[in-house]
Amino acid sequence: MQVIRTIKNMQTLSKALRSEKKTIGFVPTMGALHEGHLSLVRRSKNENDATVVSIFINPTQFGPKEDFKQYPKDEKGDLNKLSGLNVDAVFIPEADEMYHDGFNTTINIGHIGEILCGASRHGHFNGVATVVEKLFNIVMPDKTYFGQKDFQQTVVIKKLVKDLNFNIDIIVCPTVRETDWLAMSSRNSYLNNEERKAATILYKALKQGEALLGRGADDVSDVRRGMKALIKSEPLAEIEYIEVVEPRTLQGIEKIKKPVVICLAVKIGKTRLIDNLVVE
Amino acid sequence: MQVIRTIKNMQTLSKALRSEKKTIGFVPTMGALHEGHLSLVRRSKNENDATVVSIFINPTQFGPKEDFKQYPKDEKGDLNKLSGLNVDAVFIPEADEMYHDGFNTTINIGHIGEILCGASRHGHFNGVATVVEKLFNIVMPDKTYFGQKDFQQTVVIKKLVKDLNFNIDIIVCPTVRETDWLAMSSRNSYLNNEERKAATILYKALKQGEALLGRGADDVSDVRRGMKALIKSEPLAEIEYIEVVEPRTLQGIEKIKKPVVICLAVKIGKTRLIDNLVVE
Repeated sequence: MQVIRTIKNMQTLSKALRSEKKTIGFVPTMGALHEGHLSLVRRSKNENDATVVSIFINPTQFGPKEDFKQYPKDEKGDLNKLSGLNVDAVFIPEADEMYHDGFNTTINIGHIGEILCGASRHGHFNGVATVVEKLFNIVMPDKTYFGQKDFQQTVVIKKLVKDLNFNIDIIVCPTVRETDWLAMSSRNSYLNNEERKAATILYKALKQGEALLGRGADDVSDVRRGMKALIKSEPLAEIEYIEVVEPRTLQGIEKIKKPVVICLAVKIGKTRLIDNLVVE
Repeated sequence: MQVIRTIKNMQTLSKALRSEKKTIGFVPTMGALHEGHLSLVRRSKNENDATVVSIFINPTQFGPKEDFKQYPKDEKGDLNKLSGLNVDAVFIPEADEMYHDGFNTTINIGHIGEILCGASRHGHFNGVATVVEKLFNIVMPDKTYFGQKDFQQTVVIKKLVKDLNFNIDIIVCPTVRETDWLAMSSRNSYLNNEERKAATILYKALKQGEALLGRGADDVSDVRRGMKALIKSEPLAEIEYIEVVEPRTLQGIEKIKKPVVICLAVKIGKTRLIDNLVVE
């Protein structure tokens, strides 16, 4: 497994792979890898001749009051896991390799990046779109893999690819969950024992929403009210949003017309967690 | 010569060329081709296995009061010229092929797009950056050719390529001029006979600026004053700007330190013309 730290070396490898007519699968990550990331890597290994994983905690997608500085890092552990999966190359640039002095080009993804998580995380999705665009040009993949846990991110990336005509397939893989159904996330490591137990309320609320829809609720406000009541029963939880949206556009709906996605963001103590459930 | 009108077909051809290990040279244009464009095509033919020319009058780089609707069109004449040069493919998409319903992703190139021509043409260079980014992803070139006449555009594109890590060489080719030294431009067709004669004042002013620098003028305001006086002697000319800038950053300078670029925009009647001269 090659560990590559410069853009130039990564592009050289990708060009070499392409000239050998090898397909490239790509898994962009911020490191602190868990089973969710590894499921993406395994899928890429199955579907491509070569698999590249990037590890880069992208500063431009964090707000000034967010957890950029605390974000968990475990380079050694990550490399061990990826080496165990026979990944071909890991791209780990420093921030000043990705953002040279004088860098100031940004991609504005429009409305879709300003709703849901974007409403509180201003500029977050433009930062995501910009770094993913750069990584696409550096890694030159045929297919790129994202987890469904970050549902809005997958819609933003699909829009980026469509609007800017990238010739890259975006593959969205199922959310991987702990045995108590908490969605895996590098940020779960912020939770203490008590918070960790309380965090199960997110998935319970999603299942409650699904059940209400299954029982024929056709008004989103009823679904939201039921979910809200459940989450409020957990004293450590503070709701940021609960929304029911159309999966492709993320537009909020009032009357249910499946398929829909139930999305939520909830703070457990100081840790902001997100999850979602597609209801067909 | 293939004439291609859809993004999908263009990407299919480019992928086929790349899989045959052929290098692709690309000349993006807005059509109404003149000898300036053709010089770029000849250079591309010399340096690449295959040459693709695009013809697309990009609506997003025109302001609401600009000449989008009048911009000269001559598809038949253009195709004849390109066929005569044995171009491999011409990509001529319609506007709704390039900008599908719901498109709203834009690239913001920052300060460098807001000075000089960008000061009066708000959003112009973001429109240029966005369409060039799309064309890069559609044509997938190794090398792309631009004329020096649009000097600021070449700097913007180089910044786009650097900031977003495109693996593409940007080749800037000398401005091609008429026998009386007027820089070739599709917009010269707007000029009536009297205006056409008056338009030679742009290059005369640039040479005046160069001469003042050659005589040891080290203060930009002296150079600007001399050029301004000359242009004002032409009654049909109205100065938009005269600037002396550092070639890489386009930053205005006060004290001369070569190399510099003298840039100007001048209206001749209702027609806005630009030109520039690099002084080493």
